[in-house]
Order: sequence, then structure tokens, then C-alpha cells
Amino acid sequence: MSSSFAICYDRHGPPFEVLHKKKLPLAPLKPGEVRLKMLMTSVNPSDLGMISGTYGRLKTVFPAVAGREGIGEVVELGPDVQDIQEGDWVAIPDAVGTWQTHPTALAAGLFKVPKDISLEQLTLGLINPPTAWRLLHDFVDLEPGSWVIQNAGNSAVGQCVVSLCKHLGLKSISTVRDLAFKPMLDECGADVVVLANSDLHKNIAEITGGEPVHLALNSVGGESAIHLVRALSQGGMHVTFGAMTGDLVRFPTRSLIFDDIKLCGFWLDHWIRTHSREEVQFMYDKVFTFMKTDVLKVAIESVYPLEDALAVLAKMAAQRGKRFGKILFRC
Amino acid sequence: MSSSFAICYDRHGPPFEVLHKKKLPLAPLKPGEVRLKMLMTSVNPSDLGMISGTYGRLKTVFPAVAGREGIGEVVELGPDVQDIQEGDWVAIPDAVGTWQTHPTALAAGLFKVPKDISLEQLTLGLINPPTAWRLLHDFVDLEPGSWVIQNAGNSAVGQCVVSLCKHLGLKSISTVRDLAFKPMLDECGADVVVLANSDLHKNIAEITGGEPVHLALNSVGGESAIHLVRALSQGGMHVTFGAMTGDLVRFPTRSLIFDDIKLCGFWLDHWIRTHSREEVQFMYDKVFTFMKTDVLKVAIESVYPLEDALAVLAKMAAQRGKRFGKILFRC
Repeated sequence: MSSSFAICYDRHGPPFEVLHKKKLPLAPLKPGEVRLKMLMTSVNPSDLGMISGTYGRLKTVFPAVAGREGIGEVVELGPDVQDIQEGDWVAIPDAVGTWQTHPTALAAGLFKVPKDISLEQLTLGLINPPTAWRLLHDFVDLEPGSWVIQNAGNSAVGQCVVSLCKHLGLKSISTVRDLAFKPMLDECGADVVVLANSDLHKNIAEITGGEPVHLALNSVGGESAIHLVRALSQGGMHVTFGAMTGDLVRFPTRSLIFDDIKLCGFWLDHWIRTHSREEVQFMYDKVFTFMKTDVLKVAIESVYPLEDALAVLAKMAAQRGKRFGKILFRC
Repeated sequence: MSSSFAICYDRHGPPFEVLHKKKLPLAPLKPGEVRLKMLMTSVNPSDLGMISGTYGRLKTVFPAVAGREGIGEVVELGPDVQDIQEGDWVAIPDAVGTWQTHPTALAAGLFKVPKDISLEQLTLGLINPPTAWRLLHDFVDLEPGSWVIQNAGNSAVGQCVVSLCKHLGLKSISTVRDLAFKPMLDECGADVVVLANSDLHKNIAEITGGEPVHLALNSVGGESAIHLVRALSQGGMHVTFGAMTGDLVRFPTRSLIFDDIKLCGFWLDHWIRTHSREEVQFMYDKVFTFMKTDVLKVAIESVYPLEDALAVLAKMAAQRGKRFGKILFRC
């Protein structure tokens, strides 16, 4: 373990300014702790928000290790550890920081994961698929055949929403900024993929054959968020779970008053903190079952060595909005 | 009844272009109908929205009679009328159009009103006070001592919210664009009246002594709506029931996701259409009881003859945002 290192930051700021690779000594394990060999970790937009200081919950102890989603193998048990064995694969709580090779963590906060799913899919199963699952379950009672609309259909959550809609017998409308993404979404089981534009609400009745749209999922913000507000039917629910733009818009007064549209947000981080370990485990188990049975498969662009993280992030920034698959780091 | 007339419009458009005074013949009464002598009617912002065509539900038969809130006396019964007598005072459904001297209406749609409240307060009891009542009851369970925040505190609904908060043991924060309104709101029982500004959210903890604010009532829109979003505590509810400005704003992504703020709308018109006659009657009875016991008193600026309506509306347009009391028409 001489190559133990982490991608760290000593203060919040632009990722390319504050991130650096740092050798971390292997600390002795305290009671209840285990040492992990990180196997794989992912890059999520919220990683960058946490580093830059715009995310909703920030690290306050520095140096902080970046990264929020990863799978590790238990390689050493500290005193008084129960229910976890050496060799187990586990999901690592995001407070730990997953962009490192040898994290330590409290065993009680770990979730064992199955070994019969590809490591790549396992790694990508902890944030985006659970988000998609909750978005489709926690806000509106959707009867089979109901329509759901989302923007950023090509995002990882977007793909999962499409796949889960297909599985649940729901019908999805995904807006994208580039129809080049349509074939990939079609492969996920998309019902309708359309270019994002301001005429969306005028075309909705034609798209759905006059059926109502009760749920809209927004991870873009700005005008795109408002287009979804307008596309909803009377009494519809608009859930925001991400943002890519800060366009100025008109406050949607008419939709709120006359169309009884409701706007709320979803934050998986908050959901996990306010639900029991059993409920979180149940959700992960659902996702892993979907992965095993090919209901869900998150698209992957590339897997890079973690030590190349800074160069990879620079490349990703240049590709913004043009990628379809996720980026992973092998540790 | 030779002076029977109405303030009408033949198409939707700017009120000063489309409104005109029109002599209306007294139609023979059909079964179930009664003839009313209109006693008093009010001017609400939504009257102008209905005339100009921006309101959520528009008249489709022209000439249409303007006005949505008024009290009439029953002067003639058609065949098969039950439960209503000549001489009764009644609230008139807004579909009828209240800016007229002698409307006819289906008796079954009328609500009898008490005669021991001033005609002015009775007339103003049908839209703004019920709106304030519903805003404080239908969205958040407010324990005594809870804080409520609103913009446009000087509006008629704003005054009612302040008075009802006082009565219900709630604490109100009202933002106003001019502190000249503060003494009048203090008289309604205001806890806090502050100038509307973008630092509101920074001062909230000091205002409430660190107590949370769970309900925000927005009838302004634009930046003011966003200031209320930011002033809310975690999980707070933001209810929009009116608009005065179309300022461009940033979609409140962070508040939705990280602060779990919920945005919805309230439209009394829709509430009435989706609730039983008994529920509507119960609400009016509440309001009239509050008026009798001086819990609620809507401020009045002036009462004008209905025949001067066009000149009065022109004067009101010039005073926009500077009035405190309501305008009434004597019929």
C-alpha cells in the first residue's frame, strides 16, 4: 500500500485550482473502523459542486477528499467490527471521500454490495439510479401508462428514468439539446425523445394523444425548467434535482395559480440522511436487482486510472453537454 | 328600474379600450331565477385580468358584464325558486358579473348574507378574506406562535393575513414597498413590517429570534417571490396567489433541492369550484363572524357610484401601488 493517495482539496474553490493529489499515510484503525482498498469511483456533477463550494452540504475538515460514489473491498478490520468481513465489497458513504485508494470508514456506515454485477455498474448504482427510482416513486402516484416528462434525457439519471419508466409501464418524454442522443435513449426504452425548445407545451397534447402529464423531472433549470412547468397538466408536480444553467426566467405565477402546478426539489443526500438504514439498503437492493436483470444499465464513456483524475476532469470540462456515458476512476 | 345598466365588454382587451356602460333590458325570469338589485360591488385586480384576458378563467359570451364580487338584494322571484325570499341580501356568483344594477341569477347559486354587517365589509368579504383564511389553513399546519411571511402586506389580502394571524396566535412578517403603510398594518395587528429588499433572508433569523418560517405568501412575483423563497426555513411552503410584476429571476434550484422548499399556488376561484356549497358557506360564515367581531376589517379608500366606474378605474391605474384601501361601487 505504498501508493496510497487521495485527490484532495484544502479549501473550496475552482476544482482545477484547489484539487491536488496527496499521499495519505495509512492511519491506525480505531474501534469499529475498517480499511478499504478502493476499487472504483465515479465522477458526478455534485463532486464538482462540493469541491467548489456550491453544493448544499460541504466538507469542513481539510484536507478533504473529493468524490462521493465508490465501491471498496474490505482489507483490514479494526477492533470491535461486526457484520463485515475482509474481502467484502462495500458501498462507501460519501462523507468519506471516494477519490482515494485506501479510505478508512466506520463499518456501521457501510453497505455490502453483491459481487455478481460488474464493478462499473455497481459503482454507478449508488447515486443516479436511486435518484431516478425515488423521483418516480416519491412525488406522484403514477398509474401504469402515465406520462412522465424530463429534461436532460441524456444524463445518467435521465437514462435511468427512461429505463425505469419502461420497466414500470410508464411513458417517458425526454428532452435533449442534441438529437444525436436519441438512439442511445431509444435503446434504454424511450417512448419520446424531442429537442428541448420553448414550443414543448404546445406539442404535448399531440405527443401524448391528449393524455395528461403529471410528473416533470428537471435537472437543467432556467428556461428549460419553465418549459417543463408549462408542459405539465393541471395539478402536475415539477421536481428539481439538478441544475446546469442559471438563465433568467419569469417566475411561473400563472402555472402555479391557474394550473395548480406544484414545484419541489429532490436531494438524494437528504433522503438518505432522513431514512433508516433498512430503507436505504432496500433501495440499493432494488437498484442492484435491476442491474442484474438488465432493467438498468448506466452508460459508461471511459474508465481512467484515479491518478489521472486532474487531467480527466479537464477533458470532461471541455466536453460539457456532449458526453452520453459516465466517467469512472479505477483505483 | 329604468336606470338598469352594466359595465360591459364585447371582447377581451385593455380595460379602457373595451369597457363601456351599456343599458341592459330587464329579461323575464326563467324557472329558478331571481332578479337582484345590486347594492354594492368591489374592484379587484382580477377584475382587470378577466377583462383584459389574462385571468385563468375568462368569459366567453359577450357582451360580458365585468366585476366579480358584490352584494345584491332579491327584488323579484321567478318560478320554482326555493329558500330565497324577496328582501334577502345575497352574495352573487362571479360568473354573473357584478358591475351591473339589476342582475338575474339562479337562486341555487346564491349565498344569503347577514344584514348586521356594514354593506361595505360584506361586499369585501367574498374574495380577499376567504383567500387569506385558506392561505393560512390549507398549506401548512401552523402551531400557535408560528411565523408567516408575506409580500404586498398592504394589499387587502395582506391586511387580512395580518389580522387573521393576530387572531390565530400566529406571527406575521409583512414586506411592503413603502413604510408609509406600516401604521395601517400595525393597526391590523402586525408583528413585523419591513421594506421589501433582497437582504430579507439575511435578517430573518434576527426578526424571528431564530424561529423557523414555514409559510410564505406571495402575490407579487419576480424578485419579491424569490426573496420569500430564500426567507423560508428548511421544508417551507411558498404559496403564490397573485402577481404584480414580471421581473426576470433565477429559477430557485438551490432552494428547491437543498432547502426542500415547496412552491404551489392558490386560486380561490378553483377552490370554490372544487368544494361543496356547504364548505363555501362555512367559509363565508367564518369571514362574516370575523367581521362582526372586528377580527377582520378590510380598509376602504372610497365608495363611488357605479356609473362613474370608467373614470374611477382610470384614477386607480394612476395610483397603482400607492393605495391602502379598496375601491367600491354603489349601484
